[in-house]
Amino acid sequence: MENLSKNKIKWIRSFQLKKHRDESNVFVVEGEKMISELITFYPDLIEFICATKDSIVSERFPTFLSAIASDEDLKSISSMKNPNKSLAIVKKPILQNSESAFKIVLDDIQDPGNMGTILRLADWFDVKEIICSKETVDIYNPKVVQASMGAIFRIPVKYCNLEEYLEIQKGKIFGALLKGKNIYTENLTPNGHLILGNEGNGISERIQKYITHPITIPRFGLAESLNVSIATGILLSEFYRNQKFD
Amino acid sequence: MENLSKNKIKWIRSFQLKKHRDESNVFVVEGEKMISELITFYPDLIEFICATKDSIVSERFPTFLSAIASDEDLKSISSMKNPNKSLAIVKKPILQNSESAFKIVLDDIQDPGNMGTILRLADWFDVKEIICSKETVDIYNPKVVQASMGAIFRIPVKYCNLEEYLEIQKGKIFGALLKGKNIYTENLTPNGHLILGNEGNGISERIQKYITHPITIPRFGLAESLNVSIATGILLSEFYRNQKFD
Repeated sequence: MENLSKNKIKWIRSFQLKKHRDESNVFVVEGEKMISELITFYPDLIEFICATKDSIVSERFPTFLSAIASDEDLKSISSMKNPNKSLAIVKKPILQNSESAFKIVLDDIQDPGNMGTILRLADWFDVKEIICSKETVDIYNPKVVQASMGAIFRIPVKYCNLEEYLEIQKGKIFGALLKGKNIYTENLTPNGHLILGNEGNGISERIQKYITHPITIPRFGLAESLNVSIATGILLSEFYRNQKFD
Repeated sequence: MENLSKNKIKWIRSFQLKKHRDESNVFVVEGEKMISELITFYPDLIEFICATKDSIVSERFPTFLSAIASDEDLKSISSMKNPNKSLAIVKKPILQNSESAFKIVLDDIQDPGNMGTILRLADWFDVKEIICSKETVDIYNPKVVQASMGAIFRIPVKYCNLEEYLEIQKGKIFGALLKGKNIYTENLTPNGHLILGNEGNGISERIQKYITHPITIPRFGLAESLNVSIATGILLSEFYRNQKFD
């Protein structure tokens, strides 16, 4: 098995930039758990895998390895503070945008951790599509991928001009606002769209005008606000709590 | 106004370690928003504030400033990747452990972001106390403080031997487990204790045995698990949804 070459290191590092990910239509996946899942369920997406000799990936899936990396190599190619023992270059999956009854709409979510967590939540509650404004963080950002815990391989995400998109939608458009109706007394069912806004500014005014059903998580204590991924979790739970599940 | 001295830089940096925070009974608060809140609501806790000349803190609260810091200074004293424009050294608040009916119990939460988010959630839903195992991340870790968004000044947190603590508790002890009762069909009210477990391993076996009411968030899709702070948000929402609020 060959060691990771300097050229490959340069090649891998290039995908920390969206521009290069878009050009080559690939992204970076890090970590034993996600790469094991990738090999098991989505082997056709794999372009390249490197790992340390003592990594779980090297031990369990030696035939999938393209190169052996040292801990130092991983430090230089990883975008994590504490690099993992394995890293893969993966084709962006082509996911069917099913005609689902309920979709999440994200208006300029900036934090990769929030974006990844919202993907993971969509995957948990079976929301079948996420629609994002063009300014929303790229789902193939390495930190989004990491936080998504595999949801990135399953949940279709579309980036578009949200105003144009919402303009032509029918049905309910829910929006999480500070002054909306109490989610605990509304009878929420997963139909229509649910809009979540930017971490600092909430839903922008030009998007707010499309909301037909403003909703709010009641506050019992003193905190000024909730993190957007936490709010998404609480809202999705409230939308799905009366649904049947497997 | 004096500039930040090398000695002060060393002094501030020392509080990145729990040992030094514990010895001096202080911790670090970073960022314009939290320091503005600190000055407004908890001025007695302030030991030292430094900020760049162009920071909001310098502009709005010049009399509270102990020293002017350069952007370089802040880079060297901050524990954030993107340092803020202001930083404070603050006395640990003495918070009353009220005899509250409902408490969160944390069994070895390790991630500072999760810990801070759980504090913020407690502050939102008005949970009046958090009980932590001794191995749980320190609430005065700079990243916990940051993620707590001020909740650190309001929510009493106690570190103790959880087994000894739970041994003598009366009332319901809820635990978030993979195989518990469906939270949507149980009639949950905020009475007793709610235990959340470690990010990787969940609630440890020696703690599980104290659970009288195992509960689970039903899964509708394919995600393997939920992040512990997201699970806490969904659970608290379910415990409080039938309560009256202001």
